[in-house]
Amino acid sequence: MKAMRDPIVTLLTDFGTKDHYVASMKGVILRINPQCTLIDITHEVSPQNIQEGAFLLAGACPYFPKGTIHLSVVDPGVGSQRKPILLVTKNYFFIGPDNGLFTLAARKDGIKRIIVLTHKKYFLPEVSATFHGRDIFAPVAGYLSLGTNPQTFGERTDHWMELGLGQPELKGDQLIGEVIHIDAFGNLVSNIDKKGFSRFIKDRPFLTRAGKRTIKGLKRGYWEGKRNEPTALFGSSGFLEIAVREGNAQKILKVKRGDQIIVSVIGDQ
Amino acid sequence: MKAMRDPIVTLLTDFGTKDHYVASMKGVILRINPQCTLIDITHEVSPQNIQEGAFLLAGACPYFPKGTIHLSVVDPGVGSQRKPILLVTKNYFFIGPDNGLFTLAARKDGIKRIIVLTHKKYFLPEVSATFHGRDIFAPVAGYLSLGTNPQTFGERTDHWMELGLGQPELKGDQLIGEVIHIDAFGNLVSNIDKKGFSRFIKDRPFLTRAGKRTIKGLKRGYWEGKRNEPTALFGSSGFLEIAVREGNAQKILKVKRGDQIIVSVIGDQ
Amino acid sequence: MKAMRDPIVTLLTDFGTKDHYVASMKGVILRINPQCTLIDITHEVSPQNIQEGAFLLAGACPYFPKGTIHLSVVDPGVGSQRKPILLVTKNYFFIGPDNGLFTLAARKDGIKRIIVLTHKKYFLPEVSATFHGRDIFAPVAGYLSLGTNPQTFGERTDHWMELGLGQPELKGDQLIGEVIHIDAFGNLVSNIDKKGFSRFIKDRPFLTRAGKRTIKGLKRGYWEGKRNEPTALFGSSGFLEIAVREGNAQKILKVKRGDQIIVSVIGDQ
Repeated sequence: MKAMRDPIVTLLTDFGTKDHYVASMKGVILRINPQCTLIDITHEVSPQNIQEGAFLLAGACPYFPKGTIHLSVVDPGVGSQRKPILLVTKNYFFIGPDNGLFTLAARKDGIKRIIVLTHKKYFLPEVSATFHGRDIFAPVAGYLSLGTNPQTFGERTDHWMELGLGQPELKGDQLIGEVIHIDAFGNLVSNIDKKGFSRFIKDRPFLTRAGKRTIKGLKRGYWEGKRNEPTALFGSSGFLEIAVREGNAQKILKVKRGDQIIVSVIGDQ
Repeated sequence: MKAMRDPIVTLLTDFGTKDHYVASMKGVILRINPQCTLIDITHEVSPQNIQEGAFLLAGACPYFPKGTIHLSVVDPGVGSQRKPILLVTKNYFFIGPDNGLFTLAARKDGIKRIIVLTHKKYFLPEVSATFHGRDIFAPVAGYLSLGTNPQTFGERTDHWMELGLGQPELKGDQLIGEVIHIDAFGNLVSNIDKKGFSRFIKDRPFLTRAGKRTIKGLKRGYWEGKRNEPTALFGSSGFLEIAVREGNAQKILKVKRGDQIIVSVIGDQ
Repeated sequence: MKAMRDPIVTLLTDFGTKDHYVASMKGVILRINPQCTLIDITHEVSPQNIQEGAFLLAGACPYFPKGTIHLSVVDPGVGSQRKPILLVTKNYFFIGPDNGLFTLAARKDGIKRIIVLTHKKYFLPEVSATFHGRDIFAPVAGYLSLGTNPQTFGERTDHWMELGLGQPELKGDQLIGEVIHIDAFGNLVSNIDKKGFSRFIKDRPFLTRAGKRTIKGLKRGYWEGKRNEPTALFGSSGFLEIAVREGNAQKILKVKRGDQIIVSVIGDQ
């Protein structure tokens, strides 16, 4: 696969937008290919939180055109032995540190080739030990967007790092998931997806427990809930979500990332 | 009117920039039209605050080129009965929920046509109940930017929802307005515009009251005020503003959105 | 020098991203030149902090392609006597208030011409006293990006305002610098650059003092430090930085902008 005629490079980092770091990366890309369209996914991944980065990347990634280059940097091990990689999947390219950040997005799209970035002629002339986003990943994204063959950038390998991202657990009449993301509205996104949920529930009545609150049934959308009352629904990412209509579920339920979300079938005695 | 040759789509939401929501919308648009230029107005509208969204959209909108498509989503009623609409005005297109968000911007520019978005072939194949920004509004903006005729997207109507945005009130020797926006510098923007103000004041001396402070006269710019002293002036949006030179008027005056700003003519006994 | 064929305009301000101010500037530029690529450096410079703006601009600027137009507005004196300027340097154009904001970036690149913006036909028809970013600097950037000759915009001058940005001080066995920037990770960036540091240290052993902590030697990257222990290293901007691996140095050391960072040679008795 070649990069598209109107190449798009997305950027996802934990750098924030207060500093000059993200702009430096964009400058490097545009110096190599001024025709690139640069789209921010987010730069507010919680510092060094690879899991959160993986979730957000997987959430946005499938909506982009075939051939899009996804450049992602959440990189607590920058400068250490972790490898810089380029993943070629069915529809996309992923460039960044090999630390599990691409687990969800690349697995979902289907991996075709894995390349360790070793050819220094595609890096900036001076590579710092602290900012591979600018010195390695950005220039590789720039050259890739010009149509450079992925294999040019390094050696092929069969290995990449995948995170063991928590799957919900089945325990008798309970499906035990956890909060994997809390969005800006305070909605609690769990790791329970629609398919797994349906297979478990099969039309039986159930309750969902989040924090100290128990919620009956499912709503179709936020508007069906009552004000200040928690509601369970399947959100736009396809996961079971706890929300409060025109309110903030995180604040009302005092739940944090990693806390359990438990779906229990109600006995029909 | 057709979309311009180099189509621009602006985005305004209350989604924040921490999540993948905005990027998903951009991906959807670029998949339909990779030539689009995407410009963020803001994604930090206070959650579900339609009035604030309406003010910010009207503030930025007139500076964009003719033919710009403004895609705006502040949508507490997503998935309910509120209609998805496309407004065609003299210079622009507005796409989003029909909940009053376009009141100021579209009214100012002059409405020419109102279309309810009903033709599902221009939506994403699967429309969620919680994220019409991605599933309905973004793809319609994408197709519109390709030059698709506005009428193609649905049925024409004569009705749209307009907010009764508070106008200042005239009470004897007082013009009573309110704070409709507080910007990032802490400047207090009122709903008293230059024209209404001049018609009321006509060269008479006056005082402006904000919080517990009384301010004499008008300054032409921030630099004319004294440090730590509140100043009244007409800001860049054309409204009466209370500011503090190199300081934060909101913090110093302890005023919040909706609080009164009162202009009183001083008796010349 | 002419603007490049695919003109890039960067924007750096202290306007934040909550308001419509930045978008208004972008609209003005795109109305003049819809082909422009607009790249945000940052809009989160601390309000009216010219020094911080100067540091961030200089950090990102050299990574952009030759011909890039850098539009920067941190402007506490807007509307007063401070001049609006256009600086032409070896590789770039800088547009904004003449208040020292360009000190680091323009000096580093090498100044070729300084023009005071006086020709009102390149401004918006109505220039407010409070928002020259939109009314003067944005339209000039737009016309410049079309290839307009820099001299067209006003009168040439030999003077521009440069900040006396604090250089580290040499006192016997000590090099006394200060914190000039704290990034989003809490890393403390000093004004001690690699060259000055090496000339002073010459292979002698040394300690670095920040807040109440003393740090031995230098690390090459964040990953070499211990968790929760402060580390000294040269960061990606080429300055001595105090960092904490997977932690926040600012919070742990309770250091703020302007605080001293002292490098002391250790006697080899």
